Amino acid sequence: MMSLSKLTRWAAAAACALAIAAPAQAEKVYRLKMAETWPTNFPVFGDAPRNMAAMAEKMSNGRLKITIDSKNKHKAPLGVFDMVRAGQYDMGHSASYYWKGKVPATLYFTTMPFGMTAPEQYAWFYHGGGMELMEKVYSKYNLLSFPGGNTGNQMGGWFQKEITSLEDLKGLKMRIPGFAGEVLAKLGASPTNIPAGELYTALERRTIDALEWVGPSLDLRMGFHKIAPYYYTGWHEPATELQFMINKRAWDRLPADLQEILRVAMRTAAYDMYIHSYHESAKNLEIIEKDYPNVKIRSFPEDVMAALRTANDELLTEKAKEDPLAKEILESQANYLKTVRRWTDISDKAYLNSIAQ
Amino acid sequence: MMSLSKLTRWAAAAACALAIAAPAQAEKVYRLKMAETWPTNFPVFGDAPRNMAAMAEKMSNGRLKITIDSKNKHKAPLGVFDMVRAGQYDMGHSASYYWKGKVPATLYFTTMPFGMTAPEQYAWFYHGGGMELMEKVYSKYNLLSFPGGNTGNQMGGWFQKEITSLEDLKGLKMRIPGFAGEVLAKLGASPTNIPAGELYTALERRTIDALEWVGPSLDLRMGFHKIAPYYYTGWHEPATELQFMINKRAWDRLPADLQEILRVAMRTAAYDMYIHSYHESAKNLEIIEKDYPNVKIRSFPEDVMAALRTANDELLTEKAKEDPLAKEILESQANYLKTVRRWTDISDKAYLNSIAQ
Repeated sequence: MMSLSKLTRWAAAAACALAIAAPAQAEKVYRLKMAETWPTNFPVFGDAPRNMAAMAEKMSNGRLKITIDSKNKHKAPLGVFDMVRAGQYDMGHSASYYWKGKVPATLYFTTMPFGMTAPEQYAWFYHGGGMELMEKVYSKYNLLSFPGGNTGNQMGGWFQKEITSLEDLKGLKMRIPGFAGEVLAKLGASPTNIPAGELYTALERRTIDALEWVGPSLDLRMGFHKIAPYYYTGWHEPATELQFMINKRAWDRLPADLQEILRVAMRTAAYDMYIHSYHESAKNLEIIEKDYPNVKIRSFPEDVMAALRTANDELLTEKAKEDPLAKEILESQANYLKTVRRWTDISDKAYLNSIAQ
Repeated sequence: MMSLSKLTRWAAAAACALAIAAPAQAEKVYRLKMAETWPTNFPVFGDAPRNMAAMAEKMSNGRLKITIDSKNKHKAPLGVFDMVRAGQYDMGHSASYYWKGKVPATLYFTTMPFGMTAPEQYAWFYHGGGMELMEKVYSKYNLLSFPGGNTGNQMGGWFQKEITSLEDLKGLKMRIPGFAGEVLAKLGASPTNIPAGELYTALERRTIDALEWVGPSLDLRMGFHKIAPYYYTGWHEPATELQFMINKRAWDRLPADLQEILRVAMRTAAYDMYIHSYHESAKNLEIIEKDYPNVKIRSFPEDVMAALRTANDELLTEKAKEDPLAKEILESQANYLKTVRRWTDISDKAYLNSIAQ
C-alpha cells in the first residue's frame, strides 16, 4: 500500500502531467492537403482556396494548416474528385460539373444555361434546398461539397465572324466544353475542346472559329481581344460556382470548432471570389475597350437565343427522364428560378433598365 | 542557499504551475456587448448579428461570446454610434447613414440614390477603396466600421395614387427619411418621418399619400399591400448595406485569432444577409402577388426618373462643395460606378434582358 505522502506526491505529479498534456492537446495542429484543378498562380480561381486557407489558419491560431497543390504538382486536374474520394488528398478546389461523366447529377451544382444569376443561385443553395440536394448527390461518394467561388456571368465567347442568324452556327467550330457544347451541337455547331495553352494559336490560325473562356477577369491575359473582333454576351454560364470538396473522414477527424472555422472560411472565400471576379471583370473590360476600341461587344440575335433555349430545354427534358435525381434537382431549380426571377425583374433589372436612360 | 533537491522540487512545481496556468490563459472568455438599432425579433436585419455571433462563438470554441441588446432593451435605436464610441457597448449593428447628422461623411457607406447595386458596392468596398475611405471617416471617432448585411434593391414604395408625371409629386406627402427625402423635396414633395408602428394607419387614413419601407422581405408583415394599390420599383436605395461597428479599444483587447474570427464572421454574416434578403423578397413577393392580385407594380415614368436624377446630382454637388471628405468619397464612388456598371451592362443586365423574350 502506498504511503499517504507518496500518494499525495503521486497525485500531484499526475495532476501536473494532466495539466501539461492539456495545452499540448489544445494546440494539436491539423494538416489538410488540398488539390486544385488550376495551374500554379492561376488568378482569381486560385486566389479563392488561398484566401480560404489563410483565414482558416489565422482564425485557428495555426491549429488548422491547409496546403494546396496546383495541377502542376499533382498532374491530375480532372482527377480531383477521385483523389479526394480516395483520401489521397483531404480537400479539393474544382467545379462540380467536371464530374458529370462519373456522376451525372453533379452537373447541376455549378451553373446552367439560361439558369440563375449568382445571387439567385446562392439563394437557391442556402435557402431553396440546393445544399441538401448537393449533399444527397455527394454523400454517396464519401464527400462533402460546398460552393467554392463564383465567376459571375460568363461571356458568350470570342468570335472571328459576327453571328447574325442560326445559319451562322452551322458548322461553327467552337471551343466550348460541357453541357453548353451539347446545346450548340444540337444547332449544328461543332464544339471541340482544346488545351488552354493552344487556344490563342487555334483561334488566330482559324483552326477554330470561336471560343469561350470565362470573361474579362481571365480573358484579358489570354490575349483573345488581339485576334478576334467579336465578344458576345453570355447565355450558357450565368453564375459559374466553383467547388470546395472534402473527404468525409478528414472532416470527421476535425474538432467541432475547426469544422466551423473551415465551413465559414469556405463560405466567405466563395462570396469573396464572386466580388473579386466582379472587380477584375470590370477593370479588365475597361482595359480591353480602351486599348482595343475595335472589339465589338454583341448579343446573339433573338432567334438564335430562342433556338438555344429550345435546344437546352429539350436536352434537360431528356436528362430528367434518364435519372430521377436529375429530375428532382432540375425541378427544384426551375421552381426556384420562377419565384426568384420575378423578384430580380422588379428589383435589379428594373433599376438597371430605368437608370440607363 | 536552496538545496539542489529543494531547487529541483521548486522548479518542478513552478513548471507545473505554469503548465496549469497555460490552458486557463488559452481559454479566457472574451465577452462583447452589442447594441442593435432594431427591435426584438426583427427579421432579416436582426438575424444578421445573431448569425455573426453564433459563428464567432462556435469558431472560437466559446472563447468569444457576443450578447445583443435590441432597441427594446437599450431604448436608443439611433444612439448606437454614441454608445459604441463611448464604450457603453463594444459593438453595434445599425446603418452608417443614420449618423449623417453627427458626421456628414457617414452618409455614403450605406447606399446612394442612382448608386451601385449590391455586388458593385461590395466590389467598391473590398477592391475599389471603399473600406479605406470608411476607415478614414470612422477612425476619428475611435470606431471600426464594416459592412453589416445588404437588403438588396429597395422598392420605391407604396402609393395610393399612380404617379404619371412630375405634377403628381407636388405636395405628395410621403414617408421617406434621409437623403432620398431631400431629393424628393426638391421636386415639391413633402417628405415626412413617422414611427414604424404608426405607418399602416397613416397610409390607410391618407395622413400620408405614400411611404417607402424596404421591399417584400420586410414589407409583407407590415401589410401595406392590403391598403395601397401601387408598388413602385426602386431608385433611391439600390443596395442598402447595414453596418457592424466596434469600439477600437474593445477590438484592440482581442487576441489576433479572435480578431480574425470576428472579422470573418462579420464579413460572412453581411454576405449571408444579402442572400437571405434576396430569398425573403422573392418568397414574399410571390405571396403578395398571389393573395393580392390587384397590387400593381409600376416604375416611375422616364421624365420623373430624369428629374429625380437631376435633383440628386445637384444635391451631391452641393455636398461635395461643403466637405472635402465627401468630395473624395463621391468621386471614388462615381469613378468606380462608371467602370463597374459597364461590366454589369454587358453581363447580368444583357443576360436578364435577353432571356426575358
